[in-house]
Amino acid sequence: MNLSPYTAQGLVEAARGEAPLDLLLRNARLLDMATGEIRLTDIGVWGGRIAGVYAPGARADANLSVELDGAYVAPGLIDTHVHLESSHFVPEVYANIVVRQGTTSVLWDPHELANVCGIEGVRAALRASRGLPLRVLLAAPSCVPAAPGLECSGAEFSQAELEEMLSWPEVASVGELMNMGGILANQEPMAGILKAGRASGKVLDGHARNLSGLALQGYVAAGIHTDHELVSGEDALEKLRAGLTLQIRGSHDYLLPEIAETLLRLPHLGSNITLCTDDIPPDLLLAQGGLLNTARRMTACGLPAVTALRMATLNAALLLGLRDRGLIAPGRLADMIILEDLSTLTLRTVYSGGIAMPHEENLSGANAPIPGLPRGPLPLPRFTPGDFRLRVPGLDNGRARLRTIKTPRFTRWSEMTLPVREGAAVVPEGQPRMAVIHRHGRHGRGENVVRLALLEDWGEFSGAIASTYTHDSHNLVIIGGNETDMAAAANRLVELGGGMAVAKNGAVLAEVAMPVAGILSDAPPRAFAEAFARVRAVSGEVAEWKPPYRVFKAIEGISLACNAGPHLTDLGLTDGTTREIVEPVLEIWRE
Amino acid sequence: MNLSPYTAQGLVEAARGEAPLDLLLRNARLLDMATGEIRLTDIGVWGGRIAGVYAPGARADANLSVELDGAYVAPGLIDTHVHLESSHFVPEVYANIVVRQGTTSVLWDPHELANVCGIEGVRAALRASRGLPLRVLLAAPSCVPAAPGLECSGAEFSQAELEEMLSWPEVASVGELMNMGGILANQEPMAGILKAGRASGKVLDGHARNLSGLALQGYVAAGIHTDHELVSGEDALEKLRAGLTLQIRGSHDYLLPEIAETLLRLPHLGSNITLCTDDIPPDLLLAQGGLLNTARRMTACGLPAVTALRMATLNAALLLGLRDRGLIAPGRLADMIILEDLSTLTLRTVYSGGIAMPHEENLSGANAPIPGLPRGPLPLPRFTPGDFRLRVPGLDNGRARLRTIKTPRFTRWSEMTLPVREGAAVVPEGQPRMAVIHRHGRHGRGENVVRLALLEDWGEFSGAIASTYTHDSHNLVIIGGNETDMAAAANRLVELGGGMAVAKNGAVLAEVAMPVAGILSDAPPRAFAEAFARVRAVSGEVAEWKPPYRVFKAIEGISLACNAGPHLTDLGLTDGTTREIVEPVLEIWRE
Repeated sequence: MNLSPYTAQGLVEAARGEAPLDLLLRNARLLDMATGEIRLTDIGVWGGRIAGVYAPGARADANLSVELDGAYVAPGLIDTHVHLESSHFVPEVYANIVVRQGTTSVLWDPHELANVCGIEGVRAALRASRGLPLRVLLAAPSCVPAAPGLECSGAEFSQAELEEMLSWPEVASVGELMNMGGILANQEPMAGILKAGRASGKVLDGHARNLSGLALQGYVAAGIHTDHELVSGEDALEKLRAGLTLQIRGSHDYLLPEIAETLLRLPHLGSNITLCTDDIPPDLLLAQGGLLNTARRMTACGLPAVTALRMATLNAALLLGLRDRGLIAPGRLADMIILEDLSTLTLRTVYSGGIAMPHEENLSGANAPIPGLPRGPLPLPRFTPGDFRLRVPGLDNGRARLRTIKTPRFTRWSEMTLPVREGAAVVPEGQPRMAVIHRHGRHGRGENVVRLALLEDWGEFSGAIASTYTHDSHNLVIIGGNETDMAAAANRLVELGGGMAVAKNGAVLAEVAMPVAGILSDAPPRAFAEAFARVRAVSGEVAEWKPPYRVFKAIEGISLACNAGPHLTDLGLTDGTTREIVEPVLEIWRE
Repeated sequence: MNLSPYTAQGLVEAARGEAPLDLLLRNARLLDMATGEIRLTDIGVWGGRIAGVYAPGARADANLSVELDGAYVAPGLIDTHVHLESSHFVPEVYANIVVRQGTTSVLWDPHELANVCGIEGVRAALRASRGLPLRVLLAAPSCVPAAPGLECSGAEFSQAELEEMLSWPEVASVGELMNMGGILANQEPMAGILKAGRASGKVLDGHARNLSGLALQGYVAAGIHTDHELVSGEDALEKLRAGLTLQIRGSHDYLLPEIAETLLRLPHLGSNITLCTDDIPPDLLLAQGGLLNTARRMTACGLPAVTALRMATLNAALLLGLRDRGLIAPGRLADMIILEDLSTLTLRTVYSGGIAMPHEENLSGANAPIPGLPRGPLPLPRFTPGDFRLRVPGLDNGRARLRTIKTPRFTRWSEMTLPVREGAAVVPEGQPRMAVIHRHGRHGRGENVVRLALLEDWGEFSGAIASTYTHDSHNLVIIGGNETDMAAAANRLVELGGGMAVAKNGAVLAEVAMPVAGILSDAPPRAFAEAFARVRAVSGEVAEWKPPYRVFKAIEGISLACNAGPHLTDLGLTDGTTREIVEPVLEIWRE
C-alpha cells in the first residue's frame, strides 16, 4: 500500500472527501475511548493519520479498502513506563516485537543505559529510537546512581544533566524518582534534579515503593506525578487519592486482581489510571507480549475491556500530553489495533501510522550496531580463584566474626564466625558468597578491587552465577559456592563483554552474551531469548532455591543499595537504611 | 493569616509533618475528582499549596485551623474559554469578581483586544493579568481580523504574530479558530497560523459553529482540539465522537438540558468535557456569577454534582496540561471552593493560593490604569446628520434599487427601491439604516468614510443606538431611524472614547463609556454595570423589537463578516457566504 506523505492541507482535503483516502477500514466496531461507545464505523486514513470516522458506506473513495466485518478497533497502546533494557534487545528489535503485539508508543526510561554510559547512553538511546514503527518517548533518568555515595555506576547525574536532557523535545518526563530518601530529605543531587524537573513542566515519574501516610504525602508534595510501584489494592487506592496517576504494571501478576477489585469499587474510574510493563525479560516478551497482555489480564479481573484499553490509550495520552493519539479521531496518528473479540482481546492486526504490521516480527535489524554505545570485552583483567578469597585484614590465622547478608530480595543483617587461615576466612564449600567488581573504569586508583560478602540463608551453591545486568550500577556481580567457579563465570563475562554465565566444576554450563554496554544484545532475538531462558533454567542446577527466576531477580537486585537493608556494591558493604558503608569484619581473634 | 513563602523543601517538610502547616481545613468533605469519592478529610495547606490530605484529626500542627463541619470542598474552578472583554471590566476587576464566585483559573482569549490593539493589546492583557488572585492563562488570538479582506480591524495577524505569542509561557493555546472557511480551504493567513499552532504543541481552540459531517471531520483533521460552539445535544455528541474536547458554555442556557441528557446517555463520561463562560455581560456577571453558575445549572439538568464540577476542574486541567491544579492533592495549588451542599452548590468560601477570599468583591482597583492600552476620545471628527445620508453615486434625482440586510442576527439579502433626491436615497422616517465607521486609523486615504446600508425587517427605529463593541473589528457602528440621532449617538461615543449610547430627538438618552481601547471600562464596576443595564433597557425605547438584549446581540454581531450572509463592515457591504464585497446599488432610474 502506498501511503501519501502527510501534509496538513492534504489531510483536511482527504477528511472532507475532496481527495481519496489512502485506506478505509470498513465496518469497524470502533471502541470510542471518549464516550465508551462501541460504534460501527468506517475509518479513513490518509498520510499516516486518521482523516475521519464515517458512517458505514459513506466513503467509497479509498486507494485501499479493508473489510473488517465488525471486528473491534482501538487506538494503538501506549506503555507509560518501561525500561527496554530489561528485554536486553536493542530498540529496533524491541520495537518490532512490541508493535506486532499492539504497543505503538512507549515512554522509555533508559535508566540502565544511563547508569552504564551516562548521558551518552541516553543520547544513544535517543538516536536508536528514531525511525522505528514504535513511537519512543524518552524519560530523563533521574537516579544515576540510585544510591549516591553507596555505589559507583558509570556516571553521576545532577541538576545540570537533567536540565540538558529535559531540553530535548524527545524527552517527555523525568525518569522514575527512586531515590526516595534523598527526595524526602531534600538532599543533593535530588533537590536539584527535582528543581530541573519541576521547571521543565514535564511529567515527574515516581517510584513510591512502600510509601504511605505522611511519607507518601511528602513524596507527592515534591511535585511527583505518577507511581508504578504498587504493592496492594489498598496501596493503589491511597496513591490515587493522593493525586498520583497510576501505572499498573503487568509484571506483578498476583497484584492485578486486588487492584482491579479496588478500582471497580470506586464511584468513578477517571483518567488517572494507566498501564505499563516496566520490566519484561526477553523470552516472556516474545511469548506473552507486553501491554496488551496486561490489559487482557485486567479484563480477566473484571474490568470492562473498553475501560482496560482506555487505561492503555486515552489515559496514557492524557498523562503524557500527547494530543495526537489515544483516540481514533480526525488528525490523530493512525495507530490502531484490530481485535477479534472483547473477552480474550485476541489481536488480528496492528496499524502503525496507517501501515499494517506483518504478523511475524521483522527482526532483520537484529544485528544493527548502536552508534555511541560501547561493545566488546569488559575493560577488566582475567581473575583467578584467589581473587575471590575473603580476606580478613590484619589477621593471618585465627577466627573472625563477619557480617552477612541474610535472605535474598528483602535482605537483612546477620553475622557468622569463621576460622581464618593465611589471611582469609575459611568459607565452607557450598556456602555462598557474592562478589562485586566495578566495571565502568571510574574508580581510578584501586581499580579492579573485588568486593566480597558472605550470604546467609541463600541455600547451598554448587557452582557460580555471574551477571553484568545488576541494578542499578550494573557492575559485575558473581554469586558462588566456590572460588574456582566464581572466577570461571567472571572471566567468561569479561570475554563476552557482559551478560550472564553459570559455571560448575570449573566450566561454563550456560551463558548469554550482552556485549552492548554489558546489558544489551544485538544477537538474533529468538536465539538470544532461548539462551537467556537456558541460563535461567541452568542456574537452578547450581543454586538450591527455586524457582529459578527468583534467583535471577535476587541477583539483579542484590546490589540495589537504594533499598533498605544490607547490599554489597562496588564501594563495599552498604546499609541502605542508615545510608552508610560498613566494615564487613566485626571482631577478630588471633591464634 | 500569614502564608509561608513557598519553597519545595518547605512544602515537603510540612506535608510530612516535620513543620507546621499554614492552614488546616478540618472535617472537610473532599470531592475527589480522581475517584469520584466524597471523603471526610483534613486538608493541609502550606506556602499556597496543598501540603497533604489527612485523616480527620491526624494533624494538629497548623498556624490556623478552620472547622468546616463537613462542608464540601472542591478544587477551584477553571474556565476553559472566556473573553474577559465581554464583561468590559479590566482584568483586575474581573478577577476580583469571578474569584469570589469560585473561578480561580481562566483561559482568556483576548480576541477583542487584539482586534483593536493588535499584539500590543495582547501584551497589555498579559501584563494586566499578572499578580491577580485569579490565575490567567492567555490564548493567542488567531483571527485578527476574523474575515480578512472583508473588514479592517486594528491589526492583522499571520503566522509570525502567532509564533511570537505562542513563544510566551503565559500563552496556553491558539485562540478560537473561527475563520472556518479559511481553515477548510487552507487559505492564508489560516494555513500559516495553524502551522504555528501545531508546531507549538499547545491547545488549538476551535469554533466549529454548525460544522457537521465531512466539514467537521475536515476541521478537526486540521489539528483542532476543542469546541464551545455547541448548538444541540446531537451536535455535542458528534463533536465528542470526533475527538474534540467540549467546552460547554453557560451563556446558552436553553441548550444545557439537551446537552446534559445526551451526555447522561453515554456509557462513559470521560475527561473530554469541560465548562466555559465565553461571553457574559457585566451586570449578569455580577448578579449570577460565571462558571459555578454553569455547573449549578448542569447539576439541575441531572448531572451528579461531582461530575459537573469535575468538568470545571480536573477535566479542564487535563485539557490545558495544568498538572498543578484540578485536584486537591499534595503539591497542587491551594485553590479550593467550600460548598454548603451538593444540590444548590451554594458557595461558602473560596481559597486562592491558600488565602480565603473576602465574600464581597474587592473592587478597589477599579480605576487602575492599564499600561499599553489607548484611552480617551476616539481619533474621529465630529459627524453631522449629513454624513449619514445614503448617497447614490451618479444619480441626482430618480429612483434606485438598493440591497438591504434583512432580519437581525441570521441576516439575509433583500432589496428595496427608493426615490433619490439631490444624490441621496429618501429613506422613510423610522426605517432603520446602519453605519460603520473605521476607528483604528488604518485606512490611510479615504479615512472616516461612513459606510451605510439599509436594514429590513428590523422594525421601526425612533432614535439611534451606537456602539464600539461590535464583533470582531469593533469599529463604530450606529443603527438608527434618522440621521440626526445617528450623528448624536456617534458623536457622544467619539467624546467618551467608545462605549454604547442611545439617542432620541437629537439628545442622548443613555450611555455607558468604554474608554479603554473603546471596549473596556475602568470606572467603578457596579456603577458601570448599572449604566450598561440601563443602556440595554433604554435601547428598547428606540428600537421596536424585544427583548432589549436581542437588539444588543444583533448590533454586536451585525458586522460579523466571517458568518454567512450580508454584513456591513468598514470596507463596505460584504457577503459572508461568497466572501466578497458587493455594490449596494443594484439599479438606477434617472428622472
